Amino acid sequence: MRQLRPSTIREILKVTAQPEIISFAGGLPAPELFPVEAIRAAADEVLAHSGREALQYGPSEGFPALREWIAEEMKRRGMRVSAAEVLVTNGSQQVLDLAAKLFLNPGDVVLMENPTYLAAIQAFQTFEARFVPVPTDGLGLIPEALPELIRRHRPKFLYTIPNFQNPTGVTLAAERRPILARIAAEHALTVVEDDPYGKLRYRGADIPPVKHWDEDGRVIYASTFSKTIAPGLRLGWLAAPAESFSRLLILKQASDLHTSNFDQRVAHAYLTQNDQPSHLERIRRAYGERFAVMDEALRAEMPAGYEWTHPDGGMFLWVTGPAGLDALTLLEQAIKRQVAFVPGRDFFPAEGGSNYLRLNFSNSTPEQIREGVRRLATLCRDWR
Amino acid sequence: MRQLRPSTIREILKVTAQPEIISFAGGLPAPELFPVEAIRAAADEVLAHSGREALQYGPSEGFPALREWIAEEMKRRGMRVSAAEVLVTNGSQQVLDLAAKLFLNPGDVVLMENPTYLAAIQAFQTFEARFVPVPTDGLGLIPEALPELIRRHRPKFLYTIPNFQNPTGVTLAAERRPILARIAAEHALTVVEDDPYGKLRYRGADIPPVKHWDEDGRVIYASTFSKTIAPGLRLGWLAAPAESFSRLLILKQASDLHTSNFDQRVAHAYLTQNDQPSHLERIRRAYGERFAVMDEALRAEMPAGYEWTHPDGGMFLWVTGPAGLDALTLLEQAIKRQVAFVPGRDFFPAEGGSNYLRLNFSNSTPEQIREGVRRLATLCRDWR
Repeated sequence: MRQLRPSTIREILKVTAQPEIISFAGGLPAPELFPVEAIRAAADEVLAHSGREALQYGPSEGFPALREWIAEEMKRRGMRVSAAEVLVTNGSQQVLDLAAKLFLNPGDVVLMENPTYLAAIQAFQTFEARFVPVPTDGLGLIPEALPELIRRHRPKFLYTIPNFQNPTGVTLAAERRPILARIAAEHALTVVEDDPYGKLRYRGADIPPVKHWDEDGRVIYASTFSKTIAPGLRLGWLAAPAESFSRLLILKQASDLHTSNFDQRVAHAYLTQNDQPSHLERIRRAYGERFAVMDEALRAEMPAGYEWTHPDGGMFLWVTGPAGLDALTLLEQAIKRQVAFVPGRDFFPAEGGSNYLRLNFSNSTPEQIREGVRRLATLCRDWR
Repeated sequence: MRQLRPSTIREILKVTAQPEIISFAGGLPAPELFPVEAIRAAADEVLAHSGREALQYGPSEGFPALREWIAEEMKRRGMRVSAAEVLVTNGSQQVLDLAAKLFLNPGDVVLMENPTYLAAIQAFQTFEARFVPVPTDGLGLIPEALPELIRRHRPKFLYTIPNFQNPTGVTLAAERRPILARIAAEHALTVVEDDPYGKLRYRGADIPPVKHWDEDGRVIYASTFSKTIAPGLRLGWLAAPAESFSRLLILKQASDLHTSNFDQRVAHAYLTQNDQPSHLERIRRAYGERFAVMDEALRAEMPAGYEWTHPDGGMFLWVTGPAGLDALTLLEQAIKRQVAFVPGRDFFPAEGGSNYLRLNFSNSTPEQIREGVRRLATLCRDWR
């Protein structure tokens, strides 16, 4: 194990947990949208009718009925998958840990978007990976750049977040997805497709995941209930082709035997006894409104030299400031004014990135968003 | 990642889940002793009064009130520890994974008892450890053997289960514990003390853990609520000195962000609102009775050439058969007679061990134990 670096985000979150701070940091879903009462009913039912089973050890693969539910849901989204290929994990974060364990030895190369999800960098750094960025534009990564990178670096896998990427909010264009799948097949490239936000689209039509185009069994798909039910349950999953699956399962066993049997059964009872589509629709509407409010406030308040992305879903937008901006210093000033965000630097596996800000819009009310952007914009106008 | 080997135990458990089989395999606590109704009340209260908090992301260290409870409990058992040193994990299994991540590079040596916990071997094998056995006798490992092993092998840590060891049931003698702690201090040896069964003593007086004698901050202590509340919640913890703690915390973040916030709060509500000592007393009494029934049945039924341990607590005893016994073949015959156990071989990090059986007595009724031993003894009498 090498290169431990504490997560700036999590350190910031400690400060921003104070209620008087308006926080665009963190990646927290809106807690007022958690289906608390429905989960309460589900927990009560599980313990009333299958308490002993829910509290006993369970299979490392996960609770069978939940695996079935996940596979059906994935099929509805256009993916070819069976319940036998689904492994329940502690959030999708654990999928990154398991993939790293399976594939990475010190010095091995991972291809990734640049910037990318901070805690993926951390998970892969634990195994001393080297990071090679894949060129991207406003339509996501450029698949045509992959063959040359594969030849030059012999990567163990490509890590990608195709929908409403963290931190940029960018979505991989529909027409690039089959190209990516084809290149992966031709070059025997494993793709770890991380899709935590896919169901949080508030604008435009759904696009099938890369996994939909995966005829060759190259894609390990990861997702989570953290954004669609609640993150406190720590429930995610992977879907992997048989050969990878059996090895990932052994690694899951050695990591923690299995994911909370109780939480899995509660989630399954909740999913099967409630109108989950309506619940998702409520989340999507709220996040769409919050994005629109933030976008409008930024347009009204921010000085020249600042640009930001316009994601069609998810929880984040990505601000590019003027070249001289030092977002870490800006954050120190911002916290004094009781507004917080995440400086972009930590999302870059290599160097650079000091003039970027990641803003979360899912966990603040429209009023908080307007006021928070006002405070932030004042600081940006005064910069230098 | 190398040397994947599937867990024989978990494969066997799939067969033995059939209700008509009497299973001495597995390490399952008695589900009829799970405090189902008390957990039901705790879950309901948590969701009624702090549902949003319980379902949101939480700190990687764990739920603060649960960490406090754990630290107080450890102090009552004679350990010097503060809540700041407690990290909540997904069962104590995850502690093994985190310790392996922190300390092990391919080829590094771990000292361990021989035989030892199967899933510890698996967790350390993921990181390509080499295993060096520490000599043991009926009083546990022999601390005086350590200095020479340390000099010769430069181990990254010693892994030990001092109470009612899995698989043998042996307890490290009280007088050896301060000696072990002193040798660890003198030789800067990290000790991973795995204590899942410490509170399951049904005979004799409690002995302080090795951590009690750890004045030099060499011991990483691991335990779990799997045997004292319920394993389905997947709640365990480690207590580590500050320097290791901060690095283990970063690894926990990268592994899965944090352990289920919901389960942690449910466990805390359960622990603080119920008479946990009485509950433990019920478990201890039941397991003590079951051990006595198994011991008596073995004495009545087993042929000459078989010996077994007489643990003062925990869930397992360890049978040594005659030199020619092949326990794996015996198991195949046993399953046909609808009784199961775990062959000892997989508990040996290196070679040997084909004439050993691990018998679990916590998860069968006295009647099942008598009948199961009768079936097993018939096979042993017919062997060869």
